[in-house]
Amino acid sequence: MYPEPIQKLITLFTRFPGIGPRQAARFAFFILKEKDPFVSELRDALAAAEAQIGICSTCFRMMERPDGTVNSCDICTNPRREAHLIAVVEKESDMRNIEQSGVYHGLYHVLGGVISPLDQDSPKRIRLKELYERVEKRLKDTAACEVILATNPTTEGDTTARYIERVLAPLASDHGALTISRLGRGLSLGAELEYVDEITLKNALTNRK
Amino acid sequence: MYPEPIQKLITLFTRFPGIGPRQAARFAFFILKEKDPFVSELRDALAAAEAQIGICSTCFRMMERPDGTVNSCDICTNPRREAHLIAVVEKESDMRNIEQSGVYHGLYHVLGGVISPLDQDSPKRIRLKELYERVEKRLKDTAACEVILATNPTTEGDTTARYIERVLAPLASDHGALTISRLGRGLSLGAELEYVDEITLKNALTNRK
Amino acid sequence: MYPEPIQKLITLFTRFPGIGPRQAARFAFFILKEKDPFVSELRDALAAAEAQIGICSTCFRMMERPDGTVNSCDICTNPRREAHLIAVVEKESDMRNIEQSGVYHGLYHVLGGVISPLDQDSPKRIRLKELYERVEKRLKDTAACEVILATNPTTEGDTTARYIERVLAPLASDHGALTISRLGRGLSLGAELEYVDEITLKNALTNRK
Amino acid sequence: MYPEPIQKLITLFTRFPGIGPRQAARFAFFILKEKDPFVSELRDALAAAEAQIGICSTCFRMMERPDGTVNSCDICTNPRREAHLIAVVEKESDMRNIEQSGVYHGLYHVLGGVISPLDQDSPKRIRLKELYERVEKRLKDTAACEVILATNPTTEGDTTARYIERVLAPLASDHGALTISRLGRGLSLGAELEYVDEITLKNALTNRK
Repeated sequence: MYPEPIQKLITLFTRFPGIGPRQAARFAFFILKEKDPFVSELRDALAAAEAQIGICSTCFRMMERPDGTVNSCDICTNPRREAHLIAVVEKESDMRNIEQSGVYHGLYHVLGGVISPLDQDSPKRIRLKELYERVEKRLKDTAACEVILATNPTTEGDTTARYIERVLAPLASDHGALTISRLGRGLSLGAELEYVDEITLKNALTNRK
Repeated sequence: MYPEPIQKLITLFTRFPGIGPRQAARFAFFILKEKDPFVSELRDALAAAEAQIGICSTCFRMMERPDGTVNSCDICTNPRREAHLIAVVEKESDMRNIEQSGVYHGLYHVLGGVISPLDQDSPKRIRLKELYERVEKRLKDTAACEVILATNPTTEGDTTARYIERVLAPLASDHGALTISRLGRGLSLGAELEYVDEITLKNALTNRK
Repeated sequence: MYPEPIQKLITLFTRFPGIGPRQAARFAFFILKEKDPFVSELRDALAAAEAQIGICSTCFRMMERPDGTVNSCDICTNPRREAHLIAVVEKESDMRNIEQSGVYHGLYHVLGGVISPLDQDSPKRIRLKELYERVEKRLKDTAACEVILATNPTTEGDTTARYIERVLAPLASDHGALTISRLGRGLSLGAELEYVDEITLKNALTNRK
Repeated sequence: MYPEPIQKLITLFTRFPGIGPRQAARFAFFILKEKDPFVSELRDALAAAEAQIGICSTCFRMMERPDGTVNSCDICTNPRREAHLIAVVEKESDMRNIEQSGVYHGLYHVLGGVISPLDQDSPKRIRLKELYERVEKRLKDTAACEVILATNPTTEGDTTARYIERVLAPLASDHGALTISRLGRGLSLGAELEYVDEITLKNALTNRK
């Protein structure tokens, strides 16, 4: 029942993460009410982002390409980062949160997805081969490396971590200088023992110290 | 901490209604991940909406301008609508909901805002003069008109309705053929008498029948 | 897994309205921790409430029985209430909310339930016969009465209201002095036209004034 | 505005954990509607709980006293529990959840509260002296004991844990056979790295393995 150009906008906005038809319609009406210069600014920003943003060829996070060539990001090229640590995360926003916390000073590897037990092709869609080659190269060069599997504590995250452990196993046995670790499990800040789930309780007991 | 083109996108998305920095960042990363053709489609849709969408010169709702000229929308020009009824709404989405309900067959007038008791300029920002002239013209032409004040049952909506009543009062006394009404107040579907507020209870009792 | 006396308490508390096993357990532990004098006070209060609270023989709300005899409550016997108005409510808490709002000064009739379209016996379980006799008596005595059907605006509430209208119909035609009304329907305070349901919109339009 | 016996019940119910005046009123009306045998059952259950429930003289959880004498509970006297493990919890419901999870087979010590940094008397109100004596006795008898500080991962829980560590320190140095541990901190099941707080991230990194 909306004019076609509005309907088209709404359809595109419903593809935004977490946006249903009602909010997509609010976005469309907001944009039509704002008009210039907001709409031109938004169009320009979309074009600029598409043209100027690339992906780091080492860790696969997004980065600005000043000259249009793809190379390594400011974390991968920062000599003050602890280069023997590689935190493997599912997606860029996980990395973002770790980075903002300021508690980690190593490097990252963005998988770009998880392995789903129900989807046989899922291992091919994440950057596993790239991780293998990156670790292999590092081991040959320097003889020490810790891969921290920082996937989420969910079924898919755990499946992915186990899969990566198996993939990297040959490197671990070949070189001896590879450590593979996982983030610690237990009580998170503010958890309530009265309500905590059984698996977390078990982890908290096992990992007591 | 994001590359500038991403930051610019995030800043623009935070201006979308109901969107905070976190979700704006999710939008930006979604767009950068989707890339073509989604981004081009979105840019084209923004351009099309800006170029092709106009505002009805009678009721001020948005409408498509097939030939780029602004005129009246398909509700205002539909001979089967009850032209003696004008429902005055705060914003287009209110009109939309009434229209979708299928219970109203008259015309609309989109105010484009409300009168705030705390903002002396607010009466100038809504389409009051346009309403006055529209009603005046109609009365001269046809001698019968009902203006239904369909503002929201809130402090601002009620202030706006009272203000409009005063503005239209001269037309009511001059012509005698103008009725000004307000939407009925009372229990809405699914309300619970156990919890209903005092004002709604009072309305429900006063308007019993 | 709890000691039997605690388990028994928990079981009884789960029968309280809106209380699940977890909160019932919290109540039981709270009580065991409080001990005297709280527990004795609670036991005494339960005994007192059971012994001293009766039901008004006219409107069927709860009332204190100073001497252990059941008679009429302080609303039914208050000469300043408008005795020609009888608001028929589903349950005492509805009456309570109307009373606290201070917008009504007539009498009440507590049905003690609703009629469910799926439960053929439900008409027998609510105080319909008592309402009929009360209205009949009043009409014979004084020749004027308005029954306000203040059931909830739900399917069951509306079914109940329609049923009562049919039950009281003979009295209406016999005496001519009986009015049967329902609470007004429309927009409740704070409703948003953008989201309001179709039936409420229809009521708001029909009942405009 | 309620009859006094009802008001008294409501006042007592508002002291129940998590219950406000509105729900307390619902409880009171529920009870008055249920009447016998529910009210007598509830009164009897309250009396029984008060008379028959005692506190374990070892771990301080609640227990049934079959013959009215207070002694040790079925966990403390169960020869199959790992008697060298004492999990120190803030309150009985924490113990309950651990017990239901089935992941722990040692003993407990219910503190009955936490130490608040703002309340100087709070250390006296929890069962610290009893813990000290229990551990001291066990060390003398058997020469091995682990105290697991299972307080909540909150400011007060951590303050309490640190305080207990200091209190037990003399026993640790004297006997050499005392271990004091805390539940592991890190990611809880289902946590999302994208949103996890900084302290939990730090714990997850520090406790990686």
